[in-house]
Amino acid sequence: MEKQYNVAILGATGKVGQELLRTLSERNFPIKNLKLLASSKSKDQNLKFKDELLTVEEVNNNSFKDIDIVLASSGEDIAKLYAKSAVEEGACFIDNSNAFRMDTNVPLVVPEVNGEDLKNHRGIIANPNCSTSQLVPVLKVLDDLAGLTRVIVSTYQSVSGAGKEAMEELSEQVSQWHTKMDITTKILPKQIAFNLIPHIDKFLDNGYTKEEIKVINESRKILHRPDLLITCTAVRVPVFVGHSESVTVDLKQTVSIDEVRDSLARHSLIKVIDDPLKAEYITPLEAAASDPVYVSRIRKDTSSINGFNLWVVSDNLRIGAALNTVKIAEYLIKYNLLNFSLV
Amino acid sequence: MEKQYNVAILGATGKVGQELLRTLSERNFPIKNLKLLASSKSKDQNLKFKDELLTVEEVNNNSFKDIDIVLASSGEDIAKLYAKSAVEEGACFIDNSNAFRMDTNVPLVVPEVNGEDLKNHRGIIANPNCSTSQLVPVLKVLDDLAGLTRVIVSTYQSVSGAGKEAMEELSEQVSQWHTKMDITTKILPKQIAFNLIPHIDKFLDNGYTKEEIKVINESRKILHRPDLLITCTAVRVPVFVGHSESVTVDLKQTVSIDEVRDSLARHSLIKVIDDPLKAEYITPLEAAASDPVYVSRIRKDTSSINGFNLWVVSDNLRIGAALNTVKIAEYLIKYNLLNFSLV
Repeated sequence: MEKQYNVAILGATGKVGQELLRTLSERNFPIKNLKLLASSKSKDQNLKFKDELLTVEEVNNNSFKDIDIVLASSGEDIAKLYAKSAVEEGACFIDNSNAFRMDTNVPLVVPEVNGEDLKNHRGIIANPNCSTSQLVPVLKVLDDLAGLTRVIVSTYQSVSGAGKEAMEELSEQVSQWHTKMDITTKILPKQIAFNLIPHIDKFLDNGYTKEEIKVINESRKILHRPDLLITCTAVRVPVFVGHSESVTVDLKQTVSIDEVRDSLARHSLIKVIDDPLKAEYITPLEAAASDPVYVSRIRKDTSSINGFNLWVVSDNLRIGAALNTVKIAEYLIKYNLLNFSLV
Repeated sequence: MEKQYNVAILGATGKVGQELLRTLSERNFPIKNLKLLASSKSKDQNLKFKDELLTVEEVNNNSFKDIDIVLASSGEDIAKLYAKSAVEEGACFIDNSNAFRMDTNVPLVVPEVNGEDLKNHRGIIANPNCSTSQLVPVLKVLDDLAGLTRVIVSTYQSVSGAGKEAMEELSEQVSQWHTKMDITTKILPKQIAFNLIPHIDKFLDNGYTKEEIKVINESRKILHRPDLLITCTAVRVPVFVGHSESVTVDLKQTVSIDEVRDSLARHSLIKVIDDPLKAEYITPLEAAASDPVYVSRIRKDTSSINGFNLWVVSDNLRIGAALNTVKIAEYLIKYNLLNFSLV
């Protein structure tokens, strides 16, 4: 019989927490016991997993006894508070937040891109930011094919990337608009209904937002290209689920559109939908609730000899969060990497 | 007394036509008689101009007798049908459509960028595509400051760029969503409510859309930089009014952010709103119904030594259409360029 594991979800009541429950069930993850953890304000909620109703417990430092794998989507502060306790109990702590991503002792992993980085982990493993997760498979293919020399990304990020409350805010603002009421803004920095906000996460001293710097730094780390020339402009758009990216790449070697298209199509995570003459391309609404990273609008960059433009779309709650987290856990199991040393 | 002119608006009942009426009134354009022209399906409508109600007439080849200036926002086919008649009657035909923009005998003009191109016109003058109009003042400033070597643009274009029916479609789809009805799509190629469409105008053989090629070719023509390395990805977003652009530029010379910011701020069309530490930046909702080209998020490009990223937003119905058209007419009057020779 297949071995089964004790799994805890930390931040179970959030948008990604719910996707984690759905993903574990859908992929028949080998679970012995499933423990749902959240902050005090969400405790005692009942959440459905397969045919069971599970009660959410308040997390504390003793929550991780006998747990093999923690899937954490609780945000940065909670992750920092509890990762150490979990790891000291011997649990692998796979974290969705920004808390540990750039820590040199923490692998930052999309399994199909750099799964081998999971070897010799020390308990904490980081899941990349959603905008990074869908970008790096595409960049990896192009880097392997012809050598990336420069990457320019403009994002079109859905409100689900900012959590359940941001989705409710878009929904509420649209209802207010429909009923001709004043539009109120509480969660996002400005009105998002019928608007765009070029401001995701905090502003830094260099004028970039933290979100933009995440895409830059995380891509460099995952691709093992610390000097990769890459820049990003991150924009929130009034879409519920599905992040889109307009990506321009420069390549070292000359390759044809067909080589680019075929190489991308061969990657297990990527689905190419790209026939301009039949007007075939992907939109975020079509990508939502499905697993692939979709690539469309592949064309020669008119501003560069060895450049290409691409349109990259994915369900940010899946490959960008829950699905990738679960795949990391599956990889750890498959390659017998659940045991780790703390030093 | 200031000289007054006989003006005709061709396509008066459309979204840009209505903006033309508002703009002529707001700017106190020196009008002797104003004639409203449209296709047979819109004739006999009454439109308000200042305190008068004017009746729309059906356009025909005799509509332009005694007209000094035609402001055309009727689309490509109608423009091609009537421009010759207008010009033969001695009228200047200032066209908002794509019909004549790349014609070497037709100046393509944003007056504050290349007004001098209006000298020696032959009657027909073209107004750039809305995405180009707001981009070229910014590019012109940067080219003059430090020499543009490469431009990469990703657009976030509002539905008003596709006309009144597209605005109604967004509005209707949102209402359908609100009332839990099936969402219907008639005007735009896919659902636009809570979605993005990377497909504006027709697809061409090279995988670009016509909209993207317009931005590329028109920018080159207006800047007198036929070899400028420039590329574009054009995306429709669920915003009613206001086009946004994520722009990355490479410059020949090294300049500081302050030099870039100050040079942009000095241009008469541009308003810089850019204080990241106070989270000050523009969104399309804030830019709508105002005249400037707003520039925010100015920062050093992390992928290039002499590069910058910028966020450029403007009301596409104003600088991108009606306002620029009227300013071309004002320039012709101011510099005594209404008379022209046909050869």
